[in-house]
Amino acid sequence: MAQASAATATTTPAGSSGDFPPFKQRHLLSIADLKQHEIIDLLDRAERMVPVSRQERKSHPTLAGKTQINLFFEPSTRTQGSFEIAGKRLGALVMNMSVKSSSVSKGETLVDTAATLNAMRPDVIVVRHSAAGAVELLSQKVGCAVINAGDGAHEHPTQALLDALTIRRHKGRISGLTVAICGDIANSRVVRSNLLLLGALNVRTRVIAPRNLLPAGIEHLATEVFTDMREGLKGCDVVMMLRLQHERANGRMIPSVREYYHFYGLDAEKLSFAKPDAIVMHPGPMNRGVEIDPAIADGVQSVITEQVEMGVAVRMAVLDALLPAGDHA
Amino acid sequence: MAQASAATATTTPAGSSGDFPPFKQRHLLSIADLKQHEIIDLLDRAERMVPVSRQERKSHPTLAGKTQINLFFEPSTRTQGSFEIAGKRLGALVMNMSVKSSSVSKGETLVDTAATLNAMRPDVIVVRHSAAGAVELLSQKVGCAVINAGDGAHEHPTQALLDALTIRRHKGRISGLTVAICGDIANSRVVRSNLLLLGALNVRTRVIAPRNLLPAGIEHLATEVFTDMREGLKGCDVVMMLRLQHERANGRMIPSVREYYHFYGLDAEKLSFAKPDAIVMHPGPMNRGVEIDPAIADGVQSVITEQVEMGVAVRMAVLDALLPAGDHA
Amino acid sequence: MAQASAATATTTPAGSSGDFPPFKQRHLLSIADLKQHEIIDLLDRAERMVPVSRQERKSHPTLAGKTQINLFFEPSTRTQGSFEIAGKRLGALVMNMSVKSSSVSKGETLVDTAATLNAMRPDVIVVRHSAAGAVELLSQKVGCAVINAGDGAHEHPTQALLDALTIRRHKGRISGLTVAICGDIANSRVVRSNLLLLGALNVRTRVIAPRNLLPAGIEHLATEVFTDMREGLKGCDVVMMLRLQHERANGRMIPSVREYYHFYGLDAEKLSFAKPDAIVMHPGPMNRGVEIDPAIADGVQSVITEQVEMGVAVRMAVLDALLPAGDHA
Repeated sequence: MAQASAATATTTPAGSSGDFPPFKQRHLLSIADLKQHEIIDLLDRAERMVPVSRQERKSHPTLAGKTQINLFFEPSTRTQGSFEIAGKRLGALVMNMSVKSSSVSKGETLVDTAATLNAMRPDVIVVRHSAAGAVELLSQKVGCAVINAGDGAHEHPTQALLDALTIRRHKGRISGLTVAICGDIANSRVVRSNLLLLGALNVRTRVIAPRNLLPAGIEHLATEVFTDMREGLKGCDVVMMLRLQHERANGRMIPSVREYYHFYGLDAEKLSFAKPDAIVMHPGPMNRGVEIDPAIADGVQSVITEQVEMGVAVRMAVLDALLPAGDHA
Repeated sequence: MAQASAATATTTPAGSSGDFPPFKQRHLLSIADLKQHEIIDLLDRAERMVPVSRQERKSHPTLAGKTQINLFFEPSTRTQGSFEIAGKRLGALVMNMSVKSSSVSKGETLVDTAATLNAMRPDVIVVRHSAAGAVELLSQKVGCAVINAGDGAHEHPTQALLDALTIRRHKGRISGLTVAICGDIANSRVVRSNLLLLGALNVRTRVIAPRNLLPAGIEHLATEVFTDMREGLKGCDVVMMLRLQHERANGRMIPSVREYYHFYGLDAEKLSFAKPDAIVMHPGPMNRGVEIDPAIADGVQSVITEQVEMGVAVRMAVLDALLPAGDHA
Repeated sequence: MAQASAATATTTPAGSSGDFPPFKQRHLLSIADLKQHEIIDLLDRAERMVPVSRQERKSHPTLAGKTQINLFFEPSTRTQGSFEIAGKRLGALVMNMSVKSSSVSKGETLVDTAATLNAMRPDVIVVRHSAAGAVELLSQKVGCAVINAGDGAHEHPTQALLDALTIRRHKGRISGLTVAICGDIANSRVVRSNLLLLGALNVRTRVIAPRNLLPAGIEHLATEVFTDMREGLKGCDVVMMLRLQHERANGRMIPSVREYYHFYGLDAEKLSFAKPDAIVMHPGPMNRGVEIDPAIADGVQSVITEQVEMGVAVRMAVLDALLPAGDHA
């Protein structure tokens, strides 16, 4: 796997963010809020975090004395863990708060929870919530930076950034590539952010799914829409598989797992329609044998575990970019 | 809102506790254990912690190398989070332990748990337990400081301290004020500590509740007892509303929520009986529309989120006072 | 209680591991992997950690910048807390991950979880799992050190080490002693590791249990097997009681608790068959009145809480030994 752009990172002093112009966003709520140069800036910052997170001394105390609250209204071991490690490696005081859904009106609880946490004077709150828009609402009620760690099927911007970083490290570029996103488009929390980010970087995007897993209006976000896997994969540089969200498919018709795998599971035969050097991605956790053949998940084209590694680097970069350097202790 | 006493705090070096005489209590179990000068000492220490928790560098490592265990037999996101942030901002190693109630005899479990944790040589254990007296029992079995973070409806001393600090910052004094505590007196974990503390500082205390939410003997703790809200609020400087504890009201007759709000919910009309500059408080989490009108909760007289902020400062002060300066690394 | 070997520890500089030859194991999966000199090396390192964990400044930042993940597939407040305090006192960034058992094939989940965590580049993963062999499988999939914190009824090596350290501190030696392990041998997670370790150090080991709580093949691990408590305790230097594992005794016949206590509960009369200076141990948590008389648990021969304290020291020593000194920041 080529890692063209990674080479440049190792020549700069690890972990110094001083060379970047200030990042002007206060929050990271949505890829839609970011201009192209801001996306590239975050990718470049993350690239420079990779060696920091790899060398012997992984901590990088530019956030010493800062308080980071991980506020997860839905459990997510993987995403919360990634943000927790990112914050701790930057020296932040990290507090995890898992809030179970309560019987009272969600809107009220959310606003009161925001006011309570805000009064503890954190520097950044990382929020996962089941409802689209909940994280933005919360961001309006607090005086600190807010990072959207997934709000329903709406946006999950750090996932899109880590996917883009992984692509760039393997392909040497992002612009001009063809990327297919395949599977449970309707219920995924990562599709929208990915389509927005890839679109902003001039990627030809394809979504591939059975018709009943295609949300209305998807054709305005993706360059092309396919229901046939082989046709959609033709000539792709990147194949992104999605987890079949059994648990979130409320009401929508899901084919039997066996049929689903037959038509939409990524195996060697279907993958052969993509470019020979195509990379295979998955946001995890995988349903092996449902949306992906284990042999492909563990195969030479898979970059799935590298996505996880880039996740820590991207989250370190976002935390570093959102908390202005002048504040650093 | 006047913040008279806050002004003095900003002139002293942030976070230095060296100017205070040693705090002689080993534990903080009950307001009843504290003399008046000790209460004032803790409020003064907390006042000096406020700027520390507000400035850019919030951490304040006088507890570096100390181990703090948060032992919560009942969940309390808000109180546990406040203690966790307080400890981490002071540089302590903080470990959260959530212990579910087990089927075995509670007394035995508690004593064995105490012995086990004590053997790990913590410097302080913060305990929340459903049973009155459980925290004091635990304190007798360990060699470190113990802080009561609520033992049933008995005591919750840091809540009383943060309420007092909030009052003092807004009124410039505590002594001589009239404070009304309204609502579910019988099931609240904060009433007793507040009445003891305010009584020790020569406050005229009133409790206001329907007769079946008034515990026996309350007249010995409060200066006056009322069942009529308007009458009780007349001329008050401070109105403390309580959460209606549906979940802890085992067996006791609770009026319908609608009737409860009609007679005891704080709205603009009832609040007009208090002094025009009266402040409104609530320990949280609020049942909006049950014990308080949302317009009052978010209104200009409300100091509810400031209570949360003072909570962190008070807990930093208590941790700092209980762990002798000579031990500091 | 004599603490002969403790005396030597206080003469060496606290927390320096520089004087020990490198520890050659990459993981700590099983006592069976350790040579006798490696066991003694770990006990000596732990002995030198005791004063570190006792003095005022308990933190000992030889793991500064290192990332430790506690991955517990089964809850264990006590063991997880011990590893968390050990890691934090050494300066590590500690992240707790509690993974609930899922409906998918456990093997797949475990391997994917391992790959995900490994991609976050931790330095050490501490694992508790319900299945024998699961921790070893996970260790094959990651690039960092792995510590077995209990895999079913298979091995729990740090428990055996802390038991051995406690014995050595009280008896001044381990070799040549007679140690009885009594009770629910079949379902205990600590028996196998203890028998292996004590056997390697030339201890005469006895297991005492009702016939239906004796696993097949136990006679190959222990020197002697008894079903009569008094006979088995005769002349013992150490009596290790086990927790009756109601919850793990699936299908096996358990006598009534009353009968169990009558025949196998340790009380003063049964203990009188051991040597007069015999020490009494229990890995906790205890079922008081089931496998042990509370008067014995709290009596002068009991070293049960000291076991907990040695647990922190042993885990600090293991972490320090597994993470090569050259890596230290």
